[in-house]
Parts: sequence; structure tokens; C-alpha cells
Amino acid sequence: MEDKLIQPFINATLNVIGTMASVPLEAGEVYIKNDPKTWGQVTGIVGMAGEEVSGNMVASFDTGSICEIVSSMLGEDHTEINDDITDAVGELTNMISSNARSELSKLNIELDMAIPMVVVGEGLQISQLGENQVTVIPFKTPKGEFVVAVGLSSK
Amino acid sequence: MEDKLIQPFINATLNVIGTMASVPLEAGEVYIKNDPKTWGQVTGIVGMAGEEVSGNMVASFDTGSICEIVSSMLGEDHTEINDDITDAVGELTNMISSNARSELSKLNIELDMAIPMVVVGEGLQISQLGENQVTVIPFKTPKGEFVVAVGLSSK
Repeated sequence: MEDKLIQPFINATLNVIGTMASVPLEAGEVYIKNDPKTWGQVTGIVGMAGEEVSGNMVASFDTGSICEIVSSMLGEDHTEINDDITDAVGELTNMISSNARSELSKLNIELDMAIPMVVVGEGLQISQLGENQVTVIPFKTPKGEFVVAVGLSSK
Repeated sequence: MEDKLIQPFINATLNVIGTMASVPLEAGEVYIKNDPKTWGQVTGIVGMAGEEVSGNMVASFDTGSICEIVSSMLGEDHTEINDDITDAVGELTNMISSNARSELSKLNIELDMAIPMVVVGEGLQISQLGENQVTVIPFKTPKGEFVVAVGLSSK
């Protein structure tokens, strides 16, 4: 996938988490997904569909990172995956993809978004149909890690 | 969700499975999803997004039903979830949602489709963000069960 399609998702993640939560965030080196297993315990998925390009964005959090982020967002202590956490993952997935979509629109790539789904469970296999590459952007927080994975392909 | 939005997915499932596999199929009574847990061992998810309506279609199969369907589709015996099965679930999810989308288009409901994701794992919690109702269409095959769940809402 072209770099110009990835940078908006890096920017969007830093913007959204930086705005919603007071948690130091570090983006790691982007890589191509090479394992069908997913990373975290709680994963948001949102489909994106346009006339020329379509695909999905996945945001998958380990317990440490998402509890830290949601504790900061809500101003209360969360240490395990519960309904507040899954709702927050859905909302964050929505906000990150909306934010990235606005930036993609400036490149004349127009995408409509579906409604995020949230999957809870560890060591799941989550794969995208077809041969198109999925690009993974890893992020670190002080207490854990999460990834934002983007698989977009031309129709 | 309005009945007119559900019937295309019932028709599409019967059409697609009936065309692709020689497996007797019975649709059960539609109900509103009331449990965040999902049903099957292998689940296809596809986002659908339009200017007026957006959401997801989920197709979730138990091992019995999907092995029966894929064995018939491929003309070879499958008894457990493997890459052929997950690929087939992605393709079936794609075909059912495309087929339903064509019928919805006749009602002037235009949806672009994302690319299906396939999740493997049992007893997962898969939920759609927000308050919109998800309608579940249950199907029975001689060796198992699966559901097609549709959550579409106006923007």
C-alpha cells in the first residue's frame, strides 16, 4: 500500500489519542502484516468503502495500553476489559478512521465509513479477504502496546 | 430495522449458498440480537457504507455447517476450520452482501462495500458500536447452524 495512504492513519491516531487521553504515545516502525493472529485482547474493526478504494482499519489493543488510555479518558481507574473499554475501543476506532478519512479526502480519496465492530478475545485470527497487503502501525504507551492496521486496495 | 432491509439478506443467503453448495438450507425466525457473544467458530464481517445508511453484515458459522457447505463447494471433505474454510467464509460473506446490496439498490438504498474480514475463535464477543439494533437471521443445515446478522442504521 502506498505511504501516502498510511501517513493519515499515523497522524490520526496520534491526534485522537493525544486529544482524548493524556498518555504518552510513541509510533514504531511500520511493517507489513505477516501473521493471521491478531495482537491485542480487544480489537475495533471498521470497514471503509469508496468508489475507487475500499478496505478496513483495525485497531487492536493489549489490556495494558487500553486500560491506561480509557482510565485517562474517563478519569477513573480501569484494569480489565469491560463494557466501558469495549465502547471506548469502538469510539476510538470511529474517531481515528474519521480523522484519517478527512486527510485522505484532501488527496481526493473519498471513503464512506461503516460502523465499527468490536471483537473481544485473545489470540484470535483476524484476516482480510484477498491478497491485498495489510500495513501495521505499532504504538507504545508506558503500560502496553497497540497497533493500527490498514488494508486498503483499489477496486 | 425495517423488514424491507432484512428480506434482501435472507434471499441473498438462500441464493448464494444454494448456488455455491448443494446443501439443504432452512431459514428460521428472525430475531433481534440480545447477547454480545457471537455464535460460531468462524465469522465473516463486512462493512457497508452509503450516504444515507451504513452498518455491517456478519455471517457466523458453527464448524458443522461451514464444513458441510465448503465440502460441497469444493468437492472435497473438510471436517475442521482451516485456511480453505476461512477463505470460503470471506468469499461467502462477500457474495451474500453483494447480492443483498443489488436488491437494496432496487429500493434506492445505495451501499458501497468494504472488504470482508474473517475472525476465527469461539465464544467471542463481537458487538457493533452504538445503539442500533442488529437483526439476526438463523439458518439450519443438516449438520449445523449459522446466522447472518445485519445492523444497518440511518446516518
